[in-house]
Amino acid sequence: MRALSFHKRLKFRKDYPIPQRAEGEALIRVLQAGICNTDIEIVRGYMPFQGVLGHEFVGVVEEAGDKTWIGKRVVGEINCPCGGCEYCRQGLGNHCPNRKVLGILGKDGAFADYVTLPMANLHELPASISNLQAVFVEPIASAFRILEQVDIGPKDRVAVLGDGKLGLLVAQVMASTGCELTAVGRHPEKLEILAKRKIKTRLVHEGPYQKFDLCIDCTGSPKGLELALDLVRPMGKIVLKSTFARGERLNLSQLVVNEVVLLGSRCGPFKRAIEALQDGAVEVDNMVTKVYNLGEATKAFSLASRKGVLKVVLYMT
Amino acid sequence: MRALSFHKRLKFRKDYPIPQRAEGEALIRVLQAGICNTDIEIVRGYMPFQGVLGHEFVGVVEEAGDKTWIGKRVVGEINCPCGGCEYCRQGLGNHCPNRKVLGILGKDGAFADYVTLPMANLHELPASISNLQAVFVEPIASAFRILEQVDIGPKDRVAVLGDGKLGLLVAQVMASTGCELTAVGRHPEKLEILAKRKIKTRLVHEGPYQKFDLCIDCTGSPKGLELALDLVRPMGKIVLKSTFARGERLNLSQLVVNEVVLLGSRCGPFKRAIEALQDGAVEVDNMVTKVYNLGEATKAFSLASRKGVLKVVLYMT
Repeated sequence: MRALSFHKRLKFRKDYPIPQRAEGEALIRVLQAGICNTDIEIVRGYMPFQGVLGHEFVGVVEEAGDKTWIGKRVVGEINCPCGGCEYCRQGLGNHCPNRKVLGILGKDGAFADYVTLPMANLHELPASISNLQAVFVEPIASAFRILEQVDIGPKDRVAVLGDGKLGLLVAQVMASTGCELTAVGRHPEKLEILAKRKIKTRLVHEGPYQKFDLCIDCTGSPKGLELALDLVRPMGKIVLKSTFARGERLNLSQLVVNEVVLLGSRCGPFKRAIEALQDGAVEVDNMVTKVYNLGEATKAFSLASRKGVLKVVLYMT
Repeated sequence: MRALSFHKRLKFRKDYPIPQRAEGEALIRVLQAGICNTDIEIVRGYMPFQGVLGHEFVGVVEEAGDKTWIGKRVVGEINCPCGGCEYCRQGLGNHCPNRKVLGILGKDGAFADYVTLPMANLHELPASISNLQAVFVEPIASAFRILEQVDIGPKDRVAVLGDGKLGLLVAQVMASTGCELTAVGRHPEKLEILAKRKIKTRLVHEGPYQKFDLCIDCTGSPKGLELALDLVRPMGKIVLKSTFARGERLNLSQLVVNEVVLLGSRCGPFKRAIEALQDGAVEVDNMVTKVYNLGEATKAFSLASRKGVLKVVLYMT
């Protein structure tokens, strides 16, 4: 099959073996897959992963032990836990130390014609969600993860930092809570996507700022955490969604002095993400910069790595 | 009066003006004062403070509006809030944005013959606590702050990182919760102080480690946070007590991947600290490296800045 593989460098291959499904897994024909900043950071050395990249996808089940899955259009959760460890027994499979993670850790991903995933990871898509929208389910779920970690009410002053792909999704998910939201970014044209949805936006250099109860860093840059430490009120919270390869100089003394709580945040609930796309709480239609055939995957990857670019999506057929 | 002042550099002066007490304040004759890492970090540039250093002290009230205070032996909380702002109204005066902080921010400290503090900040000492012990009330209170921020029970696996002055106090306070405690340090002779109190200790290079539910970084070094990120379990907590002047390279991707919660922690409850000294929950008698007269304050400061040294205390008469 065709696949965009990463072994020290990115390479598009036509002869990659079709993955063999293990027991409990489904074989899925990939329809479309989105390029995420994590993919870009893996190529930069953030994780030692080697194999097929890609973890945001929509596909059709071709083979599965449970035949009722066959032919269904699905998205899939990316963590494949062992099922037997302390974390799995507590329902915390996303933190299973033996887990594989689609296209990130020990398991080939979705920039390919086929992918395998445990049936337990699959979510059938309603017809009202397009393939292009479905590619956003995984990052939208990751935005909803924040609501599982932090209580957010209408009185809370929340800042979302970063107007990239993830920031635009997180801002929309935060808006759904009714909180006092400000989205902070560097790109007027991206912030406009949020302004159209009645979300208050600010360019990052437009100070001075009020203080916020909660700052969510989606900048993908260590500068984002510095800004968050500046903007958060004493005893406020910062959620860190950004992962990046580089270790950067950080002064955390303000975190101590102001007794700030910093929370790392990763994968989230697919069900809520699918519902949010269905009921329009999150809109993604303005967030696709370009769509490429899988055959042009390396070109797509180059574009996705450029500053200012939003979602780049690969289609397989 | 005599004072150790810091104006770009440390200087012992004999002609420093006696501080004038404002309304609501007491004038306190200082008996003894301890040198804290924060004092050392201020000299290194951690805060832009200029004036008399020192915030860990015991003294006798000489003047006060409320005459019942006069002659009492006291310790004093170091934050002097404005009393009128949003934070003060919520009882969070320690985070008042207009606050002064004794010997740290806008208010001369206790390495001097006299100091002033609001009467509301004072705690009378029971006779059973010696002057030398009383100097530890402020840092012990800061250790108890952690128990106000994090629920810790007997099943929790807790690591205290750092066997310096603060680490030894934090470890003792944590031991008082009955948690599964390990104190991790670099100095066998310091860890021995804890081992004598039946606290489990480990030298930092003695791996491999188990994972901990809670790691408390008292190392005073950015390396401590890195170690904490290594040792904490997924979805575990790290409390950061260290403040230091330098911004250092830090890679926080493990915090995101493992969804770790990092809490800054500063000042704490004096009442509990005084009780802990009284009932023996915290012992400090082995923690004083040397005692100097205030006249030798610069020499004392040099010693306190050396690696491996525990508490250095100044006495005034």
